[in-house]
Amino acid sequence: MVDSMKKRIVILGGGFGGVYTAMYLENLCKHRKDYEISLVNKENYFVYQPMLAEVVGGSLGFLDTVSPLRRLIPKTKLYVREIDSIDLEGRVVSLLPKFSHTALDLPYDHLVFALGNVTDFRGAKGLHEHALPFKNLSDALRIRNHLIEVLENASIEHRAEEREKLLTVVVGGGGFSGTEIVAEVNDFLRNLAKHHHEIHPDEIKVYLVHSKDRLMERELSPSLSHYAEKILKKRKVEILFNTRLVTASPEEAILNNGVKIPSKTIISTVPSSPNPIIETLSLPLEKERIKTDRTLQVEGTTDLWALGDCAFIPLEEGPCPPTAQFAIREAKTLASNIFAALEGQPKKEFSFKGLGMFGALGHRSAVAELFGTIKISGFFAWLLWRLVYWIKLPGFDRKIKTTFSWLLDMVFPIEAVQLKLDERQAIAELHYEPGEVIFNEGDIGDFLYIIIKGKVEISRKKDGEKRVIAYLGEGEIFGEKALLNQIERSATATCAEACDLLAMRKGDFGALITNLKEFKDKVEKLEKERIDILK
Amino acid sequence: MVDSMKKRIVILGGGFGGVYTAMYLENLCKHRKDYEISLVNKENYFVYQPMLAEVVGGSLGFLDTVSPLRRLIPKTKLYVREIDSIDLEGRVVSLLPKFSHTALDLPYDHLVFALGNVTDFRGAKGLHEHALPFKNLSDALRIRNHLIEVLENASIEHRAEEREKLLTVVVGGGGFSGTEIVAEVNDFLRNLAKHHHEIHPDEIKVYLVHSKDRLMERELSPSLSHYAEKILKKRKVEILFNTRLVTASPEEAILNNGVKIPSKTIISTVPSSPNPIIETLSLPLEKERIKTDRTLQVEGTTDLWALGDCAFIPLEEGPCPPTAQFAIREAKTLASNIFAALEGQPKKEFSFKGLGMFGALGHRSAVAELFGTIKISGFFAWLLWRLVYWIKLPGFDRKIKTTFSWLLDMVFPIEAVQLKLDERQAIAELHYEPGEVIFNEGDIGDFLYIIIKGKVEISRKKDGEKRVIAYLGEGEIFGEKALLNQIERSATATCAEACDLLAMRKGDFGALITNLKEFKDKVEKLEKERIDILK
Repeated sequence: MVDSMKKRIVILGGGFGGVYTAMYLENLCKHRKDYEISLVNKENYFVYQPMLAEVVGGSLGFLDTVSPLRRLIPKTKLYVREIDSIDLEGRVVSLLPKFSHTALDLPYDHLVFALGNVTDFRGAKGLHEHALPFKNLSDALRIRNHLIEVLENASIEHRAEEREKLLTVVVGGGGFSGTEIVAEVNDFLRNLAKHHHEIHPDEIKVYLVHSKDRLMERELSPSLSHYAEKILKKRKVEILFNTRLVTASPEEAILNNGVKIPSKTIISTVPSSPNPIIETLSLPLEKERIKTDRTLQVEGTTDLWALGDCAFIPLEEGPCPPTAQFAIREAKTLASNIFAALEGQPKKEFSFKGLGMFGALGHRSAVAELFGTIKISGFFAWLLWRLVYWIKLPGFDRKIKTTFSWLLDMVFPIEAVQLKLDERQAIAELHYEPGEVIFNEGDIGDFLYIIIKGKVEISRKKDGEKRVIAYLGEGEIFGEKALLNQIERSATATCAEACDLLAMRKGDFGALITNLKEFKDKVEKLEKERIDILK
Repeated sequence: MVDSMKKRIVILGGGFGGVYTAMYLENLCKHRKDYEISLVNKENYFVYQPMLAEVVGGSLGFLDTVSPLRRLIPKTKLYVREIDSIDLEGRVVSLLPKFSHTALDLPYDHLVFALGNVTDFRGAKGLHEHALPFKNLSDALRIRNHLIEVLENASIEHRAEEREKLLTVVVGGGGFSGTEIVAEVNDFLRNLAKHHHEIHPDEIKVYLVHSKDRLMERELSPSLSHYAEKILKKRKVEILFNTRLVTASPEEAILNNGVKIPSKTIISTVPSSPNPIIETLSLPLEKERIKTDRTLQVEGTTDLWALGDCAFIPLEEGPCPPTAQFAIREAKTLASNIFAALEGQPKKEFSFKGLGMFGALGHRSAVAELFGTIKISGFFAWLLWRLVYWIKLPGFDRKIKTTFSWLLDMVFPIEAVQLKLDERQAIAELHYEPGEVIFNEGDIGDFLYIIIKGKVEISRKKDGEKRVIAYLGEGEIFGEKALLNQIERSATATCAEACDLLAMRKGDFGALITNLKEFKDKVEKLEKERIDILK
């Protein structure tokens, strides 16, 4: 399965940092059969983040901002899985299963953390439940679907109070990402509403809530911030400065100054924090990010590396900013340093000053600050923004396709089609035939099962022989042990007859058992009985 | 809310039948302010079914086969909702709520059934749980995502048995839709696998299971059936005639001759039956479909009409076949007959002979039988197929966009990007602020709630005054009554403090209460206590 003669470089994450590291490594290891590069990512595609807001607005198609990873990094072994855990001592990354329940172990010689940021609502009560994050393609799709849905419902809603909630959007965070998304959302809603003659344009309210006193204050100088503010206001976005979203309910957004805004659409681009898996490891952290030295090696280690938004990389001017232009350049240094480490050559230090920043403001308008001195705004900045990102867009076919999309967008009216996947039942029904294995001893505990019909045999291997522990029937529960104790399956479940089962996901099981006393009692009682059987 | 001076025509369903009825009615009622046309559909778009298989294969973009309904029928009032129930006596259609829990009532003077077919796995144990239907856009997306996922996982799977299951696809049904989808799936998989160097082409197995002895036997003559068979076999599809899919599990497809095919991908285009809501009404049915006379009026009624796949329309040659070309022509007759009925003019009888049939066979190949005599096959049939459907495609921008997609598809390689929406937790967490209403007396019972934290006030209106019945706290359940008895909410639930709740959907609640005795006992006990309180 794993060629132990090869040096294995495993990259975690398929954003700018991870993908460009793999690209540069593929190039460096071109003629080397003794190196193996692997990349782990939840999706099989790379998202071109700078253009993601345009997917919400509709000027780009759903797939124009993404590229299949296999095309970008053809010589890298791709693992489209979620990470379960990382064993730094044993040098193994464990991946969650798909289509079966068996985890996949991935040993490494060098490990690269390129896990990026996540929108982390943990602890932010109400936002966790009701705010829409804006980070990846599925967030963009969800926001777009949601906006179409509120308009569809507003146009057949007659209760004034409900209409107001449906037609009000609150965006939290006035950094780059918040400003871009509020601009796109505002354009999209107002544009789309033209096709809904039941909705008056003045009914639409879009708020941007920002904790500082000017927009994008970290990256832009005051004059550009104010330009952006002026543009948004002209387009009827109401900006609330020095204010934060503190909580939300299905009916309203609540700000730190006590103001309540009735709304069914709350989008938040803050708080952003590194991937939660990083917390579970004993790595040197600074501001929650992995601390590296100037060579991008994790401090105090020889086999760990980090870059991009999840890394704290000290430069003379301060830590590297979390932007694509830095991540791409970090990737180049990191790749050559891993290669150098494997070849016993000296490593290089990372340095880069940054070229400038663009902030898109929706419909043919942007602001830019280049090389620290040049400030531009308006249509010309927008053209330059498109041009720069278009040039950087990976892949020739991607470039052609976005060009077509932009052209079609200029000519044809906006399209408001919801791209939904039907929601499946949460508690899934499963049907098994006699003799089929539901899970094996040693598998990962991902579901709780309830028997609707049929007979399930629970067995264990002892000294290589199968020992049947129990037969379970209608209405009985199994699989709770691995879930309760966060351990592997301690037995194998096989269908003795054709079986119909209910399967409840781990997260749902957790929610029920924590909050439903009778369920907890039942499971705990069962657990005790079963331990006795095993004795 | 509803202008009772107007004559209200309500159309149920936004497929070919419904949309074309609305189009023709818009035209007939152009200068009439006293007529109101409404259309109810689950989605805000019309799906151009004949090209849907190409979305799976990827030669068309996700949205190339759909058109926003608002654009197609701008003068029709659109209700993007699901139907809850229909009261034929009271002449009201009740729609399920969205964003609130209040049902929406839609009174009508004339009601048009254009609800089409659904893939109905009820009663087909195993298929209901594990087979993928192929009917609408979200089915097409799901199939596409699933195919990409099996390939991604096969390329990192080392267990031979698991690889086989991942790389085998079974399609049930060799009618038009089954033949089209098996051809597209086969092309897509084999094409895509070229980018997975870990997968050998011979590992991919695609089966088509058909209960008759030749393909598309209802619509095509034997010579064309055999041509289609030859083409598919050449492309390595294995066709099993005189066989049916009887059941499935997460591991295999099981046929009526006892053969088991290990597979993780089972697609079924049969059994197809009319929308289940039709069964709940006391309408004259024939072969499960609504029986109309030749004027498309439902037999024995004056205000009900039916067309398309859900209708049984008697012609001299037998009932109308369930195809788009018939539905469009039925719509024209139906629209003019409703108009005639409203104006007190005589109605017309429907008649149409059909022009012929096309069957697409994937990559630049098709079969066609035109005007009952002309038979064509191969590339020319495919070109004609594209041309005919392209001409019929509604909307100029849609035509241009599909043309671009086809052009790009010819030039650039296939793209395998999964368009997923993150799966949400089944049992949702909700946060409410003090004073917010969770549901109102009279609302629809759609969720069961469990209190994680906070206090909920349960109250009722009596003689216009609010009467508090109870306060509930941590760990307590509410909302079960409406779910258990399929009735409206009998009380209002308001948050007395800030509350965190778990909300379980009706379907999940049903599954749990039927199969988990302790949960059932708990809820029933509660129910009894609460009835006592209300006494």
